[in-house]
Amino acid sequence: MSREIRLASRPSGWPVPENFELAEVESPPPGEGEIGVRNLFMSVDPYMRGRMNDAESYTPPFRIGAPLDGGAVGEVVVSRSPDLAPGDIVTHGYGWREYAVLDAGQARKVEEIPGVPLSAYLGALGMTGLTAYVGLLDIAHFKKGEAVFVSGAAGSVGSLVGQIARLKGASRVVGSAGSPEKVAYLIHDLGFDAAFDYRDGRIREQLAEAAPDGIDVYFDNVGGDQLQAAIDELRMYGRVAMCGAISVYNATEPVPGPNNLFLAVGKRLTLRGFIVSDHQARLPDMIAELGAWLREGRLVSMETVVDGLENAPRAFIDMLRGANTGKMLVRLAR
Amino acid sequence: MSREIRLASRPSGWPVPENFELAEVESPPPGEGEIGVRNLFMSVDPYMRGRMNDAESYTPPFRIGAPLDGGAVGEVVVSRSPDLAPGDIVTHGYGWREYAVLDAGQARKVEEIPGVPLSAYLGALGMTGLTAYVGLLDIAHFKKGEAVFVSGAAGSVGSLVGQIARLKGASRVVGSAGSPEKVAYLIHDLGFDAAFDYRDGRIREQLAEAAPDGIDVYFDNVGGDQLQAAIDELRMYGRVAMCGAISVYNATEPVPGPNNLFLAVGKRLTLRGFIVSDHQARLPDMIAELGAWLREGRLVSMETVVDGLENAPRAFIDMLRGANTGKMLVRLAR
Repeated sequence: MSREIRLASRPSGWPVPENFELAEVESPPPGEGEIGVRNLFMSVDPYMRGRMNDAESYTPPFRIGAPLDGGAVGEVVVSRSPDLAPGDIVTHGYGWREYAVLDAGQARKVEEIPGVPLSAYLGALGMTGLTAYVGLLDIAHFKKGEAVFVSGAAGSVGSLVGQIARLKGASRVVGSAGSPEKVAYLIHDLGFDAAFDYRDGRIREQLAEAAPDGIDVYFDNVGGDQLQAAIDELRMYGRVAMCGAISVYNATEPVPGPNNLFLAVGKRLTLRGFIVSDHQARLPDMIAELGAWLREGRLVSMETVVDGLENAPRAFIDMLRGANTGKMLVRLAR
Repeated sequence: MSREIRLASRPSGWPVPENFELAEVESPPPGEGEIGVRNLFMSVDPYMRGRMNDAESYTPPFRIGAPLDGGAVGEVVVSRSPDLAPGDIVTHGYGWREYAVLDAGQARKVEEIPGVPLSAYLGALGMTGLTAYVGLLDIAHFKKGEAVFVSGAAGSVGSLVGQIARLKGASRVVGSAGSPEKVAYLIHDLGFDAAFDYRDGRIREQLAEAAPDGIDVYFDNVGGDQLQAAIDELRMYGRVAMCGAISVYNATEPVPGPNNLFLAVGKRLTLRGFIVSDHQARLPDMIAELGAWLREGRLVSMETVVDGLENAPRAFIDMLRGANTGKMLVRLAR
């Protein structure tokens, strides 16, 4: 017997607990080439909100009545594949359930790093880390000596973007977050040069004060007003990595775009959207670099952990509202 | 004695004739290393509107009471430089006047192509052609077999973008323009596969009908609603070359940006602004390719020509309102 979270109904605007249902299911035994995995942690991510709509996107929408899915890390307990053995730790895409049966080819075995918790493979050493790494280096083409601004900077991806930029020699790292506590965390714990609370308003003024010489790179997790402010502050040949737009995910009406986008012409700006799944080939590079920094204690991998599958919908909703610092995870077993 | 057009006052919103004044001036004799040029044609371009504001931009603002400047082609009549001789035809940046004195290093000697009029060196074989060429090929990375949409398609740059795309093997070339006559011109004279009148409204629907399988490249001359429609219709990995935003140049209030910009994430779109002056190194390639097409009659270089310096302000204002088909020029001498 296992438990899973299903989509009960599609949210209109902000999701509510009633959009989800917890179900008990009997798991089938793994077939030839399959494995059975006891999930230890699952990830809740902003992009999942888009999949709850009945709309074509870069990933297919979740189906009503079916279990949700997403990143998870777990321990193989049954294997009918020569490639994996019981006791192996794997990451895979069948989260939102306590026990998963999947094709062994869909799982990636984790090479454990001493001193690094398994949950990191959903965060700094997983898709979250790869998103930060690829977005900053391959999409925004950050170079040593440049100034970087990242929104959602206390979140899972943003907290890594700022740290990677700092460790790679940024001239200035600026972040925005949604509370004074998070702003203090960015500066005192993660080594940001400056940070501000976007809920205070005056976003453009706050950004201009935080980065008085302008910025070269904006890593955009939120869209909206912060993207507009960044376009104002970007220097010549600046780049925007468009990673997500959490500020509009729950909007029920179209949200106006930046009213200064035409500045991209004279400033020769590049705005580029990306999806991490296109960039799996960079995973080994990312794990090598970030893994070394983690071991050496130079990179902080912050997590907000909620216990129990039954609390996963609440963790997801809270994450969308910014309740987390660092990566939001649900612990499914110890 | 020569005549020149000066900026009398800065326009607020749409420019009016009173913002300009015609003045008679006595030209100084060329000094050492300088040349005197009798201008034959001058260019009026959308970007000049931005320079009439008292605002920092990628080019410095025009000064009140001083002559305007911009692209011109003329004949050297006096030379105190070993590099140029009387009778040479040159392009340079001292338009808006009948006679110009400038450093010989600021002029570029034109290699005349038989059968190609000198005015083409302000259009297809000048900065206009380079803008179209670089924007389509180097900024938007157009490749054979892709579908292209260009706004302002009956204008100077747009009419070349569509033709270059067709000549380089686009699967489909779609243009928008501001009248039924221009739409017919795009299809019947320039070989566009489809075109529509943006003044009819329903821009997104018209674009979707004109490009039922979507577009890979959008060459943006106008911004506003057409950029928003293009973002909707762009396919995965689509690119936008942001060349200008004539729809907002005369706005006195901020104009909302595209409300669907977040689609750039899931569709992995790239939006990139550019200024042609960064890409002078590509001029020889452009002249070789477009020059050959012009000689062979495969490329149409359409012009709307107004006679007389005194009519240059009106030509500029009319161009901003879309009165021209192809390149808008002012003939200053025969």
